[in-house]
Amino acid sequence: MEDVQLDEEQKHFKSICAAFFNYQVDSLRDIARMEKNFRSLKEKHLDLLPVPYTERISKLIDCVNKNFFFIVHIVHPHNDLFKCTKMPDGKLQIEALDVPYKNVSKVRSTLRQLVRDWSKEGQEERNMCYKPILDELNRLYPHPCVNDSRISVLTPGSGLGRLTYEIAKLGFKSQGNEFSYFMLLASDFMLNKADHIEQYPIHPFIHDFTNVLNTSEVFKEILIPDICPSDELPPDSDLSMVAGEFVEVYSKQVASWDCIVTCFFMDTANNIIEYIEVIYNALVPGGTWINFGPLLYHYADMGDAMSIELSWEEFKEVVRRIGFIISKEQFNESVYASDVNPMLKISYNCIFFTAVKPLDS
Amino acid sequence: MEDVQLDEEQKHFKSICAAFFNYQVDSLRDIARMEKNFRSLKEKHLDLLPVPYTERISKLIDCVNKNFFFIVHIVHPHNDLFKCTKMPDGKLQIEALDVPYKNVSKVRSTLRQLVRDWSKEGQEERNMCYKPILDELNRLYPHPCVNDSRISVLTPGSGLGRLTYEIAKLGFKSQGNEFSYFMLLASDFMLNKADHIEQYPIHPFIHDFTNVLNTSEVFKEILIPDICPSDELPPDSDLSMVAGEFVEVYSKQVASWDCIVTCFFMDTANNIIEYIEVIYNALVPGGTWINFGPLLYHYADMGDAMSIELSWEEFKEVVRRIGFIISKEQFNESVYASDVNPMLKISYNCIFFTAVKPLDS
Repeated sequence: MEDVQLDEEQKHFKSICAAFFNYQVDSLRDIARMEKNFRSLKEKHLDLLPVPYTERISKLIDCVNKNFFFIVHIVHPHNDLFKCTKMPDGKLQIEALDVPYKNVSKVRSTLRQLVRDWSKEGQEERNMCYKPILDELNRLYPHPCVNDSRISVLTPGSGLGRLTYEIAKLGFKSQGNEFSYFMLLASDFMLNKADHIEQYPIHPFIHDFTNVLNTSEVFKEILIPDICPSDELPPDSDLSMVAGEFVEVYSKQVASWDCIVTCFFMDTANNIIEYIEVIYNALVPGGTWINFGPLLYHYADMGDAMSIELSWEEFKEVVRRIGFIISKEQFNESVYASDVNPMLKISYNCIFFTAVKPLDS
Repeated sequence: MEDVQLDEEQKHFKSICAAFFNYQVDSLRDIARMEKNFRSLKEKHLDLLPVPYTERISKLIDCVNKNFFFIVHIVHPHNDLFKCTKMPDGKLQIEALDVPYKNVSKVRSTLRQLVRDWSKEGQEERNMCYKPILDELNRLYPHPCVNDSRISVLTPGSGLGRLTYEIAKLGFKSQGNEFSYFMLLASDFMLNKADHIEQYPIHPFIHDFTNVLNTSEVFKEILIPDICPSDELPPDSDLSMVAGEFVEVYSKQVASWDCIVTCFFMDTANNIIEYIEVIYNALVPGGTWINFGPLLYHYADMGDAMSIELSWEEFKEVVRRIGFIISKEQFNESVYASDVNPMLKISYNCIFFTAVKPLDS
């Protein structure tokens, strides 16, 4: 990589760490706004509340502190990216962190995605989206190790790493690929540094008071992880993570993978046709592609960003024209990082298919 | 109203009309962006598309033109708000319209809400949210006219007017109240100016290509209205609409209404406690409040806007402390302006309750 590019990369990485480090300050600012709104109510309105608002505020502060305690574990190895100044009173002060709102909300959604991938409460959601994939892998490759050589499975958009981990646990050579440092930092921590089950209590739902049935839902404590990844992985397992943009990394790896699994990934493309092409080329002849997900194109409505939005009908035709044979096609309902919110249900009718790259290709 | 306030009001009204008039230009700009994205694809990618992209583009332009034809009917009485210049070639050119993105998207969502309120396709959605309310009104007031005097029903947040209209059709004195000129202009048109059934073909789904199963869904034609409002209303019916902010208009109307119906309305409050209080005061002793809706507080996350977000548990307690007796409480699943999109389902578990203001209050 060239120096300029390396500098840019380093700057980007630092800005993500800054967003994590800023979590407490950002959250307390929001809580202060909520407190101000309550304080501005007339006395007679305040008297109508079943519980004084000050109780809500102090509970929220407690939860933010617990979340921050966990978040600091993720980023503390990168403390040295930030200048610290010793103040006259002896306290250390970190350099000012300038975090755009987009990144504030990404830290918060990382907390919610931890529920999906690494909590007991996420089991139901994982059963909806990961289990069909793992079952399909078991069906396609009943023996993931053949004569000391392993079937290799790539999971682009591996997020917090649970699916990639489960694939390794089945005995496959499993590689995750992820572009977002929010995900990479958090998945690295979960996969390599979490010591024991239910080690960290977090409160991922405190940032949203809409559609709440009972106030206790907002404060719900989630214990992560539900399993200790390092304990449960067989000693000879083969699990790796690669940082970087999918097309950039894998367009150079021709005929290299036995299987590629895309789960809630295809719609992260600027150009979905290019994704399909890279998948096809990266597979060995006879290799398989398992896809599970919606078509919620991430770059639709993103100003001037390139975005090619195909319907499933068009997507499927492109898959065929590129050379795949679709061997299985169904629709499965699934949720994504759902808040287990009883008043709001968002679910996707996901496309679940297996496509084969012909042996003679 | 003071002159300054009147000026502000007039300016605001003009900006909403501008958003409607700008619909075609805004939409064509988006289509041009889509075209540019497709055009930037490599030849080999373009060849993989089942249908040339130019076909999608020209279909979209057709649909935009049809939508604009309808939209112009809504706002043409307000043409004179805008300066027109005769160009050297004899064509008229309207003054430059500066429309913020928020308003661009409100015009588009008005199109989708027309499906909810005034199309055959919206019947299922109306059965979910309006029917339980109308059934409850029939149960509470089996005789909406008593000795020449009608039971009066107010629907704040009346939107495109269908619920207010259906209540009038049952024989009640029915008044809608709405703050948004987008809604007021469109509901006025539907209630008073639509001449016959299925008069206007519109294409409300063309602005979103995410989670599309078959391309034809995007281009789906909807015919509005499903009924001719003026034909079906009995000649002695009593239906009115009042423009303005709910608290501002109705806090002065003490003990004036027999029944208040709030449907997807309570969470539009900056201060939900104030809404409850105004409803209580505006009802006659013995009057009833029927509520149906989620708690998707509109002002949550709206920067520095005042927002008091209560859970249902807290909301209910405030309702009681203000003096209401809750006579019925249930949860009903409902959607809101759903796109009949087969790949994405968003549904609300709505609170459906009836509360009574005691006779001796």
